[in-house]
Amino acid sequence: MTLRFGILGAGRIGQVHAAAVAGLAGAAMVAVSDPLETAAKAIQDKYGCDIRSVDAIEAAKDIDAVIICTPTDTHADLIERFARAGKAIFCEKPVDLSLARVRDCLKVVDETKSFLMIGFQRRFEPDFNVLKQAIDAGRIGKVEMIALTSRDPGPPPYDYIKRCGGIFRDMTIHDFDVARWLLGEEVDTVQAAASVLVDPKIGELGDFDSVNLILRTASGRQCTINNSRRATYGYDQRIEVHGSEGSVSALNHAEARIEFAGPEGYTRPPNQHFFITRYADAYAAEIAAFVKAVQDGAPPPVSGLDGLRALALAEAAVLSVAENRTVLVSDILG
Amino acid sequence: MTLRFGILGAGRIGQVHAAAVAGLAGAAMVAVSDPLETAAKAIQDKYGCDIRSVDAIEAAKDIDAVIICTPTDTHADLIERFARAGKAIFCEKPVDLSLARVRDCLKVVDETKSFLMIGFQRRFEPDFNVLKQAIDAGRIGKVEMIALTSRDPGPPPYDYIKRCGGIFRDMTIHDFDVARWLLGEEVDTVQAAASVLVDPKIGELGDFDSVNLILRTASGRQCTINNSRRATYGYDQRIEVHGSEGSVSALNHAEARIEFAGPEGYTRPPNQHFFITRYADAYAAEIAAFVKAVQDGAPPPVSGLDGLRALALAEAAVLSVAENRTVLVSDILG
Amino acid sequence: MTLRFGILGAGRIGQVHAAAVAGLAGAAMVAVSDPLETAAKAIQDKYGCDIRSVDAIEAAKDIDAVIICTPTDTHADLIERFARAGKAIFCEKPVDLSLARVRDCLKVVDETKSFLMIGFQRRFEPDFNVLKQAIDAGRIGKVEMIALTSRDPGPPPYDYIKRCGGIFRDMTIHDFDVARWLLGEEVDTVQAAASVLVDPKIGELGDFDSVNLILRTASGRQCTINNSRRATYGYDQRIEVHGSEGSVSALNHAEARIEFAGPEGYTRPPNQHFFITRYADAYAAEIAAFVKAVQDGAPPPVSGLDGLRALALAEAAVLSVAENRTVLVSDILG
Amino acid sequence: MTLRFGILGAGRIGQVHAAAVAGLAGAAMVAVSDPLETAAKAIQDKYGCDIRSVDAIEAAKDIDAVIICTPTDTHADLIERFARAGKAIFCEKPVDLSLARVRDCLKVVDETKSFLMIGFQRRFEPDFNVLKQAIDAGRIGKVEMIALTSRDPGPPPYDYIKRCGGIFRDMTIHDFDVARWLLGEEVDTVQAAASVLVDPKIGELGDFDSVNLILRTASGRQCTINNSRRATYGYDQRIEVHGSEGSVSALNHAEARIEFAGPEGYTRPPNQHFFITRYADAYAAEIAAFVKAVQDGAPPPVSGLDGLRALALAEAAVLSVAENRTVLVSDILG
Repeated sequence: MTLRFGILGAGRIGQVHAAAVAGLAGAAMVAVSDPLETAAKAIQDKYGCDIRSVDAIEAAKDIDAVIICTPTDTHADLIERFARAGKAIFCEKPVDLSLARVRDCLKVVDETKSFLMIGFQRRFEPDFNVLKQAIDAGRIGKVEMIALTSRDPGPPPYDYIKRCGGIFRDMTIHDFDVARWLLGEEVDTVQAAASVLVDPKIGELGDFDSVNLILRTASGRQCTINNSRRATYGYDQRIEVHGSEGSVSALNHAEARIEFAGPEGYTRPPNQHFFITRYADAYAAEIAAFVKAVQDGAPPPVSGLDGLRALALAEAAVLSVAENRTVLVSDILG
Repeated sequence: MTLRFGILGAGRIGQVHAAAVAGLAGAAMVAVSDPLETAAKAIQDKYGCDIRSVDAIEAAKDIDAVIICTPTDTHADLIERFARAGKAIFCEKPVDLSLARVRDCLKVVDETKSFLMIGFQRRFEPDFNVLKQAIDAGRIGKVEMIALTSRDPGPPPYDYIKRCGGIFRDMTIHDFDVARWLLGEEVDTVQAAASVLVDPKIGELGDFDSVNLILRTASGRQCTINNSRRATYGYDQRIEVHGSEGSVSALNHAEARIEFAGPEGYTRPPNQHFFITRYADAYAAEIAAFVKAVQDGAPPPVSGLDGLRALALAEAAVLSVAENRTVLVSDILG
Repeated sequence: MTLRFGILGAGRIGQVHAAAVAGLAGAAMVAVSDPLETAAKAIQDKYGCDIRSVDAIEAAKDIDAVIICTPTDTHADLIERFARAGKAIFCEKPVDLSLARVRDCLKVVDETKSFLMIGFQRRFEPDFNVLKQAIDAGRIGKVEMIALTSRDPGPPPYDYIKRCGGIFRDMTIHDFDVARWLLGEEVDTVQAAASVLVDPKIGELGDFDSVNLILRTASGRQCTINNSRRATYGYDQRIEVHGSEGSVSALNHAEARIEFAGPEGYTRPPNQHFFITRYADAYAAEIAAFVKAVQDGAPPPVSGLDGLRALALAEAAVLSVAENRTVLVSDILG
Repeated sequence: MTLRFGILGAGRIGQVHAAAVAGLAGAAMVAVSDPLETAAKAIQDKYGCDIRSVDAIEAAKDIDAVIICTPTDTHADLIERFARAGKAIFCEKPVDLSLARVRDCLKVVDETKSFLMIGFQRRFEPDFNVLKQAIDAGRIGKVEMIALTSRDPGPPPYDYIKRCGGIFRDMTIHDFDVARWLLGEEVDTVQAAASVLVDPKIGELGDFDSVNLILRTASGRQCTINNSRRATYGYDQRIEVHGSEGSVSALNHAEARIEFAGPEGYTRPPNQHFFITRYADAYAAEIAAFVKAVQDGAPPPVSGLDGLRALALAEAAVLSVAENRTVLVSDILG
């Protein structure tokens, strides 16, 4: 049975998801909604779907599932609406910047027994999955320490910085999810250090651009996270998992697999610069996993609780910086 | 204006081209033809096109272009037929195993002023193109020596060996084309050495499985080619171009960008094993280039003459091995 | 003028320093001292020097400089004695495990205007020096974040664990020194997490075997340190320095520069396993730098204060773990 | 028993060998001889040995072995003289540029039952030895095809070009020896292509600067050799051995094990530029192997016959280029 989709939000990531749906056997692009007509029109032209209002999509009989990629402050409301409307829901991270609001929203999802999947696309990145499977197969023994490096080529616009909830909730959140996915245990404590090194204006807006964190589980496993809003060599996305019998790393993706040799030495191209290029395969696999889970009646591969827990780690990081201390995650989650 | 396609031959490579056509703006899959009904049916089911006879495609008003991926011994006849029918033609290499037959066929193409492109997909491989553009931009100075390494994961079936025209015409032919593309000058002489090291049965069938060649241009540029029908580490496809100011190499494609560390050292996965996976992007780009050239009224990016010249180099290699000498290509081409 | 050496302690590291002195123009091995006669004898046999008592070396007219590589708890006393005896002193790290004792000892060095150099050999490692010079030359812009990875192939004997002062004072101390050397600013705060993951017995002895740290300077530069007492792939020693205009990394040293390819993929050998092999060039360069500084009347390349400050960072790390907080280094140094 | 050495020739390579002898347990530098007094003096000053005439070294009772590193045209005469004088002989390649002269010389060595080792240092390079041992241990199955790449950073002086016997006898000779060492079978046929691409003056002097060769054994194993007198990225010295079960490669030696990342991508330093730096360990191991073989009464690790056979391959290469044919080595060796 084909899963029929409505997409809420026709921006950059909405276009990515529309392409994924259109290219997928067992899925159909039925409608798109966006206050900005030209954005919705672009998707309509490409995939031949309808443009409809959110209300119309909510009421539609020919739509089984929605992908929410509207601005963050609308996510929780839309999740609740579409949960009540009985649609399967895929929502971009985060559900909300407020833990309390997320909790309330997830309560509605629970009560309505809705299917809600959160968009942490890294769990679907092909290389990361080979790495995860190798760990699960025991190839490196017991997981001991993980090092995550995520650096953006450059900072986002100031407007985005202002409303994104801060670097921990906006950028590190992806690493929090990867850490939880790979550690095999919940995080117990969070230590964070934060600086403004890239652009003083980011500091003036109350945010940081360069952070390091240490996560620790109850049994003592540790994960470090390094984030920067600047990397002159492209989008830097690395994972290293150190175990009792060896280690496994996921490497960066170069723009091309070539190498120059000359007086300056041996040079390989920089990393792909754009997150949508870097994670193109991951985005497609993510939507495929959503469709498969809905069709199989399986639980969502990334749940609302996963979104909540990642957000709690971000809160802990904020506290750690503010109060110069190691923060217990249980104090946040209650 | 959309270019409307008929595909002749629904085998492995026909399916690849059908997917390329279907995924391309400005191109449409109209019909497929194959004596084997199940093969044609598979393409029909996937892309919703017609199944037609070769005759019907030849006569069709709603078909502008054909892709020939039938068995080799039918290529020259089909090219002539569709040239006379006024269709744009894309034909898999080789036009024919006989130089004389190729020449006759190309005469028909000339007389009918037809558009014929030969399927040397490596010219469209993205990494190879970055390499080529770097050379053309002068990044390594003047090209001096090229080393091409092409090794298959394993030998093809004996049946294929019997009718493929021998390793030089079947496998090295791709390297001959890459050599001509990168050397920037026509090849003047060919030296070849050939052995049976992988499977004695290949020798019994009159072929070789392990060869090395040296091509030399009039100005002295040289290109070596190394081919083996066996590589336990996957499909080995490398280019190294050494110039007066530096060198540039195209590297292999690993199955995943990960690395293990353990007592045995640091291990990265083997290369992708299958040529269709390895050259997936190249096949798509090749058809896109065909469509663009036809629509722009430009000459074919890879012409019948390119096919002829590559085949002449294969003939020269055969002679070099048989007669223990350095063979002048002009003696072959006349 | 040749600098004439006495070596105190003929163990593993004493032998390394003896070889360095013997191979150095402008330096001479005059005497060695060790309570264990066979150890001293081995050095005597190899370099033809005398075996003398510590008292005799202290009183010797034909000895200008001493290298102290006796057990840690004798370092401070020996430094004071030989400072008063007017010898130039090279002492293996640490001066002492107690900050107060180090302070007292350095006071004697100051009062006697003695030349004291501390053995942090990593500052003399050739690759690390190319990295440092590149940073100083502005190649990566302004230093922002550093990641140090130091993992031993396996834990030391329990006896060593008992008396080494704990992993921060014994192992991380080298990384503290490298961090100070590369950050270009003093460390302001220390955050540390520590676990027992390798061997529970290490925990029973009151120590940890797996730690991560974040150091932060006043201007916000950060340095992470990852230490493990186990790495199945050899001695793992990496530096990554991320700056405003790029990054520079020092890579591991493989046992051999070869690569295997096979069904399992591409494999390079593990790292050199032994720290004395890995840092062989560094140890020789360190003694050469000592000799040069003494002969030039220059200040020691690594001073007693450097030893003190690294030890203070270790104290801060211990406190951070014990009290779950971010520790101000100024609280330790007073 | 200590082997007492006289070195004939105090040039660049004489100094390398002197250092090797001086640093070796069981070997002693007794005397050096060179028509150029300052050269001999430099070695005397460094190692405290005598300066003596060739006649005096020939007659000396306190000298057991000589290292011949005088100009090539004196090698054969000196070998004969010192063979008759009963000294063990180490001689730099080649014995002579004329095959006939080499044969005569080796006859004297045979008749006098002298110990003669030829200086093909690559057989003693540590990485190449790990590679060789892996092959011998069956790690890559049966050897099928070898690719040797040897490129000099830049051409030697014209004077050297004039008297070196041509690129095949001077430069490729090392690769011929490595090929024989690794192929495990004698070479049956040689095919060569040669060009002047680096400097037209080299062509005017009757030599080439860019060559490729294919060697083939009777069983069909093949080895390609690529030589250039120019490589802007340092001294390029690579080996790739492809076997039935995998392949093994020896990689280049970078000036430092560091990596930069920036807008241009990821850059590692060029290769070590100087052959004496690149093969420093190999030269020392070579002399150690000479000493050990003499002291053990074992046959020389690289014999006069090895020198003769490598030279015969060079002759075959010259003929292949001159006569545009595949040359049988047995036609050269008779």
